[in-house]
Amino acid sequence: MKKLVNDPENVVEEMIDGYAKAHSDYIKRLEANDRALVTARPKDEGKVSILVGGGSGHEPAFMGYVGEGMADGVAIGNIFSSPPPAPILEVTKAVDNGSGVVYLYGNYAGDVMNFSMAAEMAEMEDIDVEMVVASDDVASAPKEEKEKRRGIAGEFFVYKMAGAAADFGYNLKEVAEIARKTNEYTRSMGVGLSPCSLPQTGEPSFELNDNEIEYGLGHHGEPGIKKAPLESADRIADQLLDEIYKDMTLKEGEDVAVLVNGLGSTPRMELYTMFRRVEQSLKEKGINIYRSYVGDYITSLEMGGCSITLTKLDDKMKKMVDYPVDCPMFVQK
Amino acid sequence: MKKLVNDPENVVEEMIDGYAKAHSDYIKRLEANDRALVTARPKDEGKVSILVGGGSGHEPAFMGYVGEGMADGVAIGNIFSSPPPAPILEVTKAVDNGSGVVYLYGNYAGDVMNFSMAAEMAEMEDIDVEMVVASDDVASAPKEEKEKRRGIAGEFFVYKMAGAAADFGYNLKEVAEIARKTNEYTRSMGVGLSPCSLPQTGEPSFELNDNEIEYGLGHHGEPGIKKAPLESADRIADQLLDEIYKDMTLKEGEDVAVLVNGLGSTPRMELYTMFRRVEQSLKEKGINIYRSYVGDYITSLEMGGCSITLTKLDDKMKKMVDYPVDCPMFVQK
Repeated sequence: MKKLVNDPENVVEEMIDGYAKAHSDYIKRLEANDRALVTARPKDEGKVSILVGGGSGHEPAFMGYVGEGMADGVAIGNIFSSPPPAPILEVTKAVDNGSGVVYLYGNYAGDVMNFSMAAEMAEMEDIDVEMVVASDDVASAPKEEKEKRRGIAGEFFVYKMAGAAADFGYNLKEVAEIARKTNEYTRSMGVGLSPCSLPQTGEPSFELNDNEIEYGLGHHGEPGIKKAPLESADRIADQLLDEIYKDMTLKEGEDVAVLVNGLGSTPRMELYTMFRRVEQSLKEKGINIYRSYVGDYITSLEMGGCSITLTKLDDKMKKMVDYPVDCPMFVQK
Repeated sequence: MKKLVNDPENVVEEMIDGYAKAHSDYIKRLEANDRALVTARPKDEGKVSILVGGGSGHEPAFMGYVGEGMADGVAIGNIFSSPPPAPILEVTKAVDNGSGVVYLYGNYAGDVMNFSMAAEMAEMEDIDVEMVVASDDVASAPKEEKEKRRGIAGEFFVYKMAGAAADFGYNLKEVAEIARKTNEYTRSMGVGLSPCSLPQTGEPSFELNDNEIEYGLGHHGEPGIKKAPLESADRIADQLLDEIYKDMTLKEGEDVAVLVNGLGSTPRMELYTMFRRVEQSLKEKGINIYRSYVGDYITSLEMGGCSITLTKLDDKMKKMVDYPVDCPMFVQK
C-alpha cells in the first residue's frame, strides 16, 4: 500500500509535529515528553481534567479530541500500541488543576497496564486519578463478560459526556461515574471490508477474500465473530443492529445517540447509506434518535468498513451530548 | 472494490436520504426535486444566498457545506456528474431572499453548461444570479490559461469566503467579486496514489503501477502532468509546492490559508505529515500561515492521495476565513 510518509520509523513523530503546527491555537506539546499534548486553552481552576490516549493510527482519536468540551490532554503511543506510562504521567501533571484527572481509554491489555501504572505514579505525586475503560464492542466477548470487551468507536461518547461533565463542574468521582454510565449505556459493532497496513511493515492487518467481509472485526484487525459474503448495506446494517439490540435494553420512546463511524477509507456516501438503515430500524422500534454522528471518528489508518454505535440517553446525558465542543478534529456548536 | 451499498443505481438517493435524516436540524429536502437540499436555517431577509453543487462522490463537498456561514442550498448530481438545471433552479427559487443568488461550482464542462442554463431560467423568474467558477488546479492548464483550469479542493476557500461575505451583508456583485478574488488568490495541486471505483461499474477510475503515483491528477481521475515513482512525503510535498509557488505571487511577510486535503482513503497521519513539510517550506520563505485546514474536505470516493492548496489572504479575507461556520460536515467556531 502506497503511503505519504518519510522514514516509516518516524511517522508518529512527524504526524505530531505537523498536528501541533497546524493547531497551535488549540494544543501545545509538552517539553517533558514528545508524545504528550495538552490543550492550549486550560479550563477553570477547580474543574476536573480529562486525559485520553492510546495507539496512533486511530485519528481523529485520540489527539483530535483535545480541546474545549472534551479532553485536556492526550498521551500518544506508537501505531496501534499503547503509550507507555511516562507521557501519561507528564500529561497528568500538566493538566491537573488540583481537582483530579479522569483517564479514558479502551480495554486493551497494553493500555490497561500503562494507564494503571501511570495512575499509581500520579497518586505518589498527590494527584487523584480515576480510570474509566471503554468496552462497547459487543462482538468481542459475551454479554456476561462485558468487562472483557474491547473499546471501539463508542469511546467517542464516553469522551463527549465526560468532557461536558467536567465543564459542568462535577467532581472527580462524578465525572468518572458519568463516563462509566455512558460506557454502560453504549453498544457498538463493526464490520471490516478491507485491511490497513502499517508503514513499517506494509503488511495487511488481516486478510479477506474478494467478496468477503468480517463482522465484529477489531480496530487493530482482531478477529471478529464471522466472515461472510458481502451483502447489501441494509442487510449488513441489520445484522450489526441485531447484535446490538440483543445486548442492550432499549424500550419504545427512549432516546439514543447514534454514531456511524468510518474505519478510514469508507466514503461518506456509504456511511450515510448505513445511517439510513439505522434510522429506519430505530423508527420501526419506536426509538428516537436524539443526535446523529456520521463520519470518521475513530479510524484504523485506511481500513475499509464501519461500525454502528448506539448510546441510550437519559435527560442528563442529553445535555452532555448537546454541549459544545471545539477541538482540532471535532467541533460541535 | 467492496462497498456498503444497496442498489448501485440508487446510491445517490440513499445517501441523500440518510444525510437528510441525520441532519434534519441543518437541512431539508425540497419537494420539487429530490436532488435539491436547502438550509433549515434561512438567513436574514436582504442577504445574498449562496448555491453550491456538482457531482456526488466528493463528500463533504458539496452538500456537507450547506448551513450557517457557507452555502444556503446545494444541487446534487450523479456520481462525478453535474446536476441538471432542474435541481439548480429549484434550489435557486427556494433560497433567494430577493437579493440574488451566487452560484459556486468547479470548472467542468457539464457544470458550466447546467449552471448557466439554470441561471438563464432563474433570470426569467426575475432572480438575479452571479456565477463564479473555481479554477484552482495549477496542473490542469498553463498559467496563461487559468480560465481552462479545473476546480479542485481550493473551491473550499471560495465557499468559505463567499458564505462569510453574504452574512456580512455584501450585495450580489460584491459577494461574487469576493468569490472571484478568492479563486484568483488560490492555487492547488494534487497527487494520486490509488484509484476509486464507481458503485455502478466497480472499475478503477485510473491505473497506476505498484510503486507509481500521479502528479496533478484530477478529482475524477483526469490525467495529471506526470507519473513518477513514489518518493518521500517531503519530496512529494516539495514538488506540489514548487508548482504552486511558480504560479502565484507570494511575498515574504504575506499571509496564506493552507488546506491539505485528503482524497478519501488517505489517513490523517499522512495528511499531517504532508502539512508538516508545507509549514517548513512556507516558513523558509517567510510566509505566514494564518489558518490551517487538514482533512477530507473535497474527496473522490475512496481515492488515495491528497492535494495542497494555498490561498493568499488580505485583511478583509482574514475576517472571512475566521468567520464561524456551522454545517453538517464542517463546523468552525
